[in-house]
Amino acid sequence: MQRIIGKQAVLHRYEDLMAYECDGYTIHKGVPAAVIFPANTQEVSAAVTYMHKHKIPFIPRGAGTGLSGGATALNGEVIISLVRMNKLLDVDYLNRKAVVQPGFINLKLSNSISTKGYYYAPDPSSQAACTIGGNVGENAGGAHCLKYGVTTNHVLGLELVLPSGEIVRIGGLPDSPGYDLLGILTGSEGTMGIVTEITVRILKKPQGIKTVVALYDDVNDASQAVSDIIAAGIIPAALEMMDNTAIEGVESGNYPVGYPRDLGAVLIVEVDGIEAGLQHQIDEVLEVCRKHHVREVRQAASVEERARWWANRKTAFGAMGTISPDYLVQDGVIPRSTLPFVLARVGEISQKYGLRIANVFHAGDGNLHPLILFDSRIPGQQQDAVLAGSEVLQVCAEMGGTITGEHGVGIEKMEDMRFVFTEQEIEVQIGLRQVFNRDNLCNPDKIFPKPARCVEVKQHLATVRETAISN
Amino acid sequence: MQRIIGKQAVLHRYEDLMAYECDGYTIHKGVPAAVIFPANTQEVSAAVTYMHKHKIPFIPRGAGTGLSGGATALNGEVIISLVRMNKLLDVDYLNRKAVVQPGFINLKLSNSISTKGYYYAPDPSSQAACTIGGNVGENAGGAHCLKYGVTTNHVLGLELVLPSGEIVRIGGLPDSPGYDLLGILTGSEGTMGIVTEITVRILKKPQGIKTVVALYDDVNDASQAVSDIIAAGIIPAALEMMDNTAIEGVESGNYPVGYPRDLGAVLIVEVDGIEAGLQHQIDEVLEVCRKHHVREVRQAASVEERARWWANRKTAFGAMGTISPDYLVQDGVIPRSTLPFVLARVGEISQKYGLRIANVFHAGDGNLHPLILFDSRIPGQQQDAVLAGSEVLQVCAEMGGTITGEHGVGIEKMEDMRFVFTEQEIEVQIGLRQVFNRDNLCNPDKIFPKPARCVEVKQHLATVRETAISN
Repeated sequence: MQRIIGKQAVLHRYEDLMAYECDGYTIHKGVPAAVIFPANTQEVSAAVTYMHKHKIPFIPRGAGTGLSGGATALNGEVIISLVRMNKLLDVDYLNRKAVVQPGFINLKLSNSISTKGYYYAPDPSSQAACTIGGNVGENAGGAHCLKYGVTTNHVLGLELVLPSGEIVRIGGLPDSPGYDLLGILTGSEGTMGIVTEITVRILKKPQGIKTVVALYDDVNDASQAVSDIIAAGIIPAALEMMDNTAIEGVESGNYPVGYPRDLGAVLIVEVDGIEAGLQHQIDEVLEVCRKHHVREVRQAASVEERARWWANRKTAFGAMGTISPDYLVQDGVIPRSTLPFVLARVGEISQKYGLRIANVFHAGDGNLHPLILFDSRIPGQQQDAVLAGSEVLQVCAEMGGTITGEHGVGIEKMEDMRFVFTEQEIEVQIGLRQVFNRDNLCNPDKIFPKPARCVEVKQHLATVRETAISN
Repeated sequence: MQRIIGKQAVLHRYEDLMAYECDGYTIHKGVPAAVIFPANTQEVSAAVTYMHKHKIPFIPRGAGTGLSGGATALNGEVIISLVRMNKLLDVDYLNRKAVVQPGFINLKLSNSISTKGYYYAPDPSSQAACTIGGNVGENAGGAHCLKYGVTTNHVLGLELVLPSGEIVRIGGLPDSPGYDLLGILTGSEGTMGIVTEITVRILKKPQGIKTVVALYDDVNDASQAVSDIIAAGIIPAALEMMDNTAIEGVESGNYPVGYPRDLGAVLIVEVDGIEAGLQHQIDEVLEVCRKHHVREVRQAASVEERARWWANRKTAFGAMGTISPDYLVQDGVIPRSTLPFVLARVGEISQKYGLRIANVFHAGDGNLHPLILFDSRIPGQQQDAVLAGSEVLQVCAEMGGTITGEHGVGIEKMEDMRFVFTEQEIEVQIGLRQVFNRDNLCNPDKIFPKPARCVEVKQHLATVRETAISN
């Protein structure tokens, strides 16, 4: 490797490798055989060609902010870090696209084009650190994906080093003849190759933005308001929710905004677009909120106030560290209409395991982030947190939802895949992987469970769902 | 087949089969071995299982409105017509989705949910006849896809009979763990299985719609206005363009609206959304139009006037029949900024072959529909029309665009795939097909060209593009 990409670009001493033993998912860890830092596509290709020839497994990695273990070397793989490939290569304002290297940081793109009035829409909470390459791998979402869509809706083209080492270019325009290769590569969690260049859509900044917070005594009233806002035909740019425990966390964290600690829930509702129509939309939102017994509503009086609300919300995960030694982030999706039922079930799971669960949601699109609080120093609690998380995902699947909205499957949810796919459906997907990654050297042992008894699981789920509906 | 799905559900006499010798693409034809009309998923599965066992190739077909020959039995395949599976199975207003059978007609969905204030967004010009199953196969677009996206952005779940006869269900929510199977199936032109049930997103009808037409002396001024409208940060619901020859066609057709015949081009610009902001947006549009020497602008004064403009536009292809015995529809995509250059090249191609070419565009997303007028009674003209169409697609590819926006590859553009893909990229796609369709019995001989000399084509294109850019 040192011969191929330079002596300085390879880590191989155990003490250096330790820093790469996991990504943002810390339950399972593994030390890589080496970490390499290629400087360009040709070096990625040369390194991969070598590893392909010698049957050495490897894993691409961005900033390591992933939450499902996708970049963790469970079995001593070589990690290919893309952080040196961190350039903004081109911006084409007329055709509204930008070309970046995979290690380019998400927020830097919006910052780089802001003065011209443009931005990049997908905004994961980790956007100040995470890379666009990593976003493509996980098909990352964010608070504003309700209106603007997730990463896959913004990727126009990719350059990819196949697991064989060959370099291919895919896409370039919204629609493409043949099969949707961009779609299948986006969100493939590094199992189909190493993305080395990304063309993304950039958007004109909306003329106006208006933001309100609605404070509720009862979380169910807040849930009902979410459903009714969407049913009223308003598509907010963002529609976020935090429950009582989450509010306790964010108000104890670095960015408190003064939410009362006794609230059942807070909603953050943002609309954007042409200035002329915005206040009318906000008035409609407020009307719905009031119908559902809101305690208080506040409209952001300044850009700074809005920024404070978002800093508070976007650092919610980390803020849990102030009220609990450890926490596990989950990521389920449900039909919006089942939100009150699912919240009640999450409450039961919390009681069953004796673990507090804070709920932070992209409520508008039914994407839950239960934060399961535990103390890893107490024997058994980490294990219980994992089991509780899996039970929450099972509830999501039972309600006709799914097991991940934006964090990916990675290592964490491999077994939970059985909640939503039959053995045969999993086999089809493994077949797709083999088209790109025949020898399974590229991020092996991720996403898919080992073959097992999933017909029974599906049957169980069907029964549970029938029961829930008939109740 | 008669034993499997009933005597009445199988056509096998030559005179009956003749009606199925082509779809909306009439250049290549073929008589199927039989046409079968299954009534439900189980019958599709039983028929496919039988054909799989006996190695009989087969082709799914909706309304037969496709424009690239995707449903044509070139080599005596069995056609599986889905027209009997034409029910609306369920509408879930709360979670905004509807479940339809593949033979359900596109426009009927919007009509069925209209009184509740909802509609289905993708609106191909053939929407009064085409089926949603066919739309999924071709990833159909339409005039309003600029703002709302094409079919793939509205498909939430599929039931599919695999080419082996097995029934699988895929998706159900916007994001899904594992690979994006919905994405790869949508637009796969019937080569990965037979879709037997579709869950689609339904949208709340916008509160207001405003529509203007802008009449231009010079087509290049109209092109520049298109670029500037988008650059101004307005995303119209639709942004359509017709050139002088297209105007001659529609004004000679069944739905004339009185466009002056000497116009260089007409733009149809529509905005929708919250009522309060709309007139402001239209005013901005008009300001841009005026900056580019518009001769006249008209704003629709009534729902009826708007409907007349759309009937005129949506019947543009058929209207060409009034000014030419035959015509060939092409479907290329280009970056918006290259529109004036590409129009000039299309004009040169028209002169070279001595064939008139009318241009109808979804201008906002750079999707061209050159209509090549010819007379099949004159020896050689049909052949020339095909060659001219292929040259237009080559120009699109040279400009960094692509060879189909919404009509698919089918039979028509198999060889043109070389303009945009290398041999290796085509092989990857054939590999993907094999995951679903190992024996290639399901719609064989479509989409992909036979292996050949495409490295040279790519090199040629790269040279041409460099030259165009440096000029």
